[in-house]
Amino acid sequence: MKACVLTIGDEILIGQIVNTNAAWIGSALTELGVEVALNLTVGDELPSMLNALGLALNNADIVIVTGGLGPTHDDITKTALSQYFGADLHLDSSVLDQVEARYKRRSIEMPPSNRGQAMVPVGFEAVMNSAGTAPALILETENSLVVALPGVPYEMKIFMREVILPRIQKRGKIVKRVQKTLLTVGIGESSLQHKLEGLEDELDEFASLAFLPNLQTLRLRITTSGNDAAERLIKLESWIRERAEEYIYGEGEETLEEAIGKLLMSRGLTISVAESCTGGLISSTLTNTPGSSAYFVGGVVAYSNVVKTSVLGVSETTLLEEGAVSKKTACEMADGVRRLLGADVGLSATGIMGPDDGTETKPVGTVWIGLSMENSTLAIRQQFGKDRLRNKERTLSAALNLVRKYLIGLYEG
Amino acid sequence: MKACVLTIGDEILIGQIVNTNAAWIGSALTELGVEVALNLTVGDELPSMLNALGLALNNADIVIVTGGLGPTHDDITKTALSQYFGADLHLDSSVLDQVEARYKRRSIEMPPSNRGQAMVPVGFEAVMNSAGTAPALILETENSLVVALPGVPYEMKIFMREVILPRIQKRGKIVKRVQKTLLTVGIGESSLQHKLEGLEDELDEFASLAFLPNLQTLRLRITTSGNDAAERLIKLESWIRERAEEYIYGEGEETLEEAIGKLLMSRGLTISVAESCTGGLISSTLTNTPGSSAYFVGGVVAYSNVVKTSVLGVSETTLLEEGAVSKKTACEMADGVRRLLGADVGLSATGIMGPDDGTETKPVGTVWIGLSMENSTLAIRQQFGKDRLRNKERTLSAALNLVRKYLIGLYEG
Repeated sequence: MKACVLTIGDEILIGQIVNTNAAWIGSALTELGVEVALNLTVGDELPSMLNALGLALNNADIVIVTGGLGPTHDDITKTALSQYFGADLHLDSSVLDQVEARYKRRSIEMPPSNRGQAMVPVGFEAVMNSAGTAPALILETENSLVVALPGVPYEMKIFMREVILPRIQKRGKIVKRVQKTLLTVGIGESSLQHKLEGLEDELDEFASLAFLPNLQTLRLRITTSGNDAAERLIKLESWIRERAEEYIYGEGEETLEEAIGKLLMSRGLTISVAESCTGGLISSTLTNTPGSSAYFVGGVVAYSNVVKTSVLGVSETTLLEEGAVSKKTACEMADGVRRLLGADVGLSATGIMGPDDGTETKPVGTVWIGLSMENSTLAIRQQFGKDRLRNKERTLSAALNLVRKYLIGLYEG
Repeated sequence: MKACVLTIGDEILIGQIVNTNAAWIGSALTELGVEVALNLTVGDELPSMLNALGLALNNADIVIVTGGLGPTHDDITKTALSQYFGADLHLDSSVLDQVEARYKRRSIEMPPSNRGQAMVPVGFEAVMNSAGTAPALILETENSLVVALPGVPYEMKIFMREVILPRIQKRGKIVKRVQKTLLTVGIGESSLQHKLEGLEDELDEFASLAFLPNLQTLRLRITTSGNDAAERLIKLESWIRERAEEYIYGEGEETLEEAIGKLLMSRGLTISVAESCTGGLISSTLTNTPGSSAYFVGGVVAYSNVVKTSVLGVSETTLLEEGAVSKKTACEMADGVRRLLGADVGLSATGIMGPDDGTETKPVGTVWIGLSMENSTLAIRQQFGKDRLRNKERTLSAALNLVRKYLIGLYEG
C-alpha cells in the first residue's frame, strides 16, 4: 500500500507555516507499515486541488487530505472532492444533529453558516469527533481510501488516531507487525551502532531496527512481524538492553524530563537547579511536565558572578582562582542551590555558550555540570560546539542525563 | 512566474524531519513576488524523482530542487536531472579545482569520492559556495529555471540568498518592489485590523500589507512597487505607526528579547526575573541573546511557596490571604528578586498553567505578571487557555511586553 499526503493551504506554500501535519501523518503511516510515496501541497484554489487529487490518486492507494474543511476556508476541499468524484453534496442529517447538539449543550444558538458543515458528498462517510465541528470525510473502496481531515493539527491527530489509522490497519493488506521504541540519551548514533555490533545477525526481513535521532535523544524503533513477532521483539529488546541499558531512559513517547520526574518521585526526592549558561532552561524544562511541583522545588539563575556568590554562596576565591566555568564553581553552585532551597538534589550548569568569550583552555562550548546530594558532590565537563542555542539544548540534556544516571545508581558508591 | 519546490528525501516522507526548507524557500520566493504553486516531496529513488520533475515542470516555470546532492545520497538528484534532460554527466574541471583547493587549504588529501561532486550534467552551470563541497546546479532557459541545491538548510540558504534569488530577480518579469516588516506584540490579528480601519483606502495594486502571525508576535509586511515605491512605503509605514505605534517593538527579523535588551542597554538598566509558573522560561529566553549578561543579572525560579517566602521574601500572610496566584504575590516576587539580585528592574510571573489546579475564581490560564522598579511596583492579570506549554509561551511574551511598555514610557507617571 502506498500513501500520498495532500496538504491544502496557501499558508504552507508561502512559508508562513511549516508543514508539520505531513510529517506527523508520514510518521504515523510509516509506523503502520504503509509506504508514503509522495507529499503534495497546493493552495486553496479549486483547479489546483482537482489537479492535486488526480496526481495523488495516480501515485497512491491511500490519500490523506488535510485542510480546507473549516467554515473559514470556503469548504474548498469538499467542493473539490464533490467535483472530482462527481458526487453531489447532500445534507447529512446525523452530522447536522451532532453539530446542533454541541451548540445546544453550550446554550449557544448555532450560526446558520455551520449548516454547511453537514453537507457531505454522496458516497462519502462523515465521521464526527469530540474536538471540533468539521467532520472527517471518508471514501473507501476495495482499491483505495480517500480521507479528508481538518487542517488544525489537534483535530487532525484525533481523527487519525481514533478513526483513520485503525481503518487502514483493518484493510488487512498490511503484514501484522509489533513495534516498540526504546529511548536513549547521552550517546551518538555512530557510537550506539558500535555498541550494538553484531546486530545485523539478529535482523532479517521479519525483524528490523531503525535509528531515529531527535534533537536531544535517539530513538531505537524495533519492528517485528510474522507468527513469532512478539517473542522476537522481546528477544531483540533484551539483546539491545544487554549492550546499551545505561543509555535507555524510557520507552514510547516519554520525555527525558518525565522520566526524571518519575525516578525522583519513586525515590521521594526533590530537586533544585542553579543555572548560569542555560539561563533557566533546565528549570523550565523540568516544569513542562504537569505535576512537577511534587519534586521540583525551584531554581536560581545565577547569570552574573555576584549572584553566584551572594545568593548561592560560591566562594569568591573559587571564582578568582578557578573561574566561573570550572569544576569547583559547578560543585559550589549545586551545593548552594540544594541548601538554599532545601532540596534533596542540587543540579548546576556553568559554561561558555558563545558565540564569543572563549579562551584557549576554555573554548566556546565548554560546560561544567554539577550534581550535589546529601553525602557527595560531583561535576562533569562537556565540550560542545559554537552555536549558542544548540549549546543550551545540549547542556540541558547532558544535565538531565547526569541526574538520571545518578538516580539509577551509575554514580553511586 | 510560478514556482514549484521539490524536496528529495525519505526522511521527510516518513516524518523523521519536518520540511522547513520548503517553508523557507516558499517564504523567500513569495517575498520576491513569485507565486509558489506547488510543494512536492518524493523519496530517494530514481523513478519517483523523474516522475516528480515532470510534475514540477508541468506546473511551474521555476523549479527549486533540494536534497539528494551530497556524496552520502548517491547523487540521486544529479542522475535524475541527467536522465530527465538527456544531459550526460561530464567532469567540470573548475568545480574540481575548487573542491581540491578547499582540501589543500585544510592540508587534507581529497577523498576520491569527492571527484563525483565535480560531475555536472551537460548544459547545467555548477556554482560553488563557501559552505560546502556540493555545487548548486542551474539550468536556465528563456522559459524556465531549474535549480538543484544541497538539502542541508545552512548551505541551501547561502545558495538561495547569494545566487538563486538575485538570478530570479534578474529574469526581469518581476516588478521591482520595496518591502519592510514591522513587528508587533500584545495585540491579536483582528484587533490590529480594527485599529488599522481605513487601511484599504491606502492600498492598491502597487501597495499591499500582509498580516503574518508568528507564535508570539504578529508581523506586518508592507510591500510597494512602481516608480514611487520608496515614498509610498514611508507613507504607509507612518500611517500604520500613527495608529499602532505602541504595539510595534521592532523591524525585520529582530526578536522581542533582543529589542528589550537594546532598550535596557540604552537606558543603562539591569533586569532580574522571579518565575513561578513559567519555571525559568523568561530568564532562559532573555539569555538567548548573545551579550545578554550586560543587562540580565539573574533570576529565581520560585516554584514552591517555601522558595517564594524564604528566598524572595513574599509574606506568608499574602500567600495565605491572596494565594500564590495574585496581584500581591506577583508584586512581592518582583520586588523581592529586584532587591535580592540588586537589579534595576524586577519582573515576575505566577499563574496556573494547567491542565489541573484551576478554581472558579482562578481558572487554568490565570496569570499575574509583576514589574518592580525603584519607585513603583505594578502587576497585570492575563487570562490564557488550557494548554500548559502554550500558556508558558503566552506568559513569556506578555511578561516581555510589559517590560517593553514600561521602558518606552507607557506605564510611567
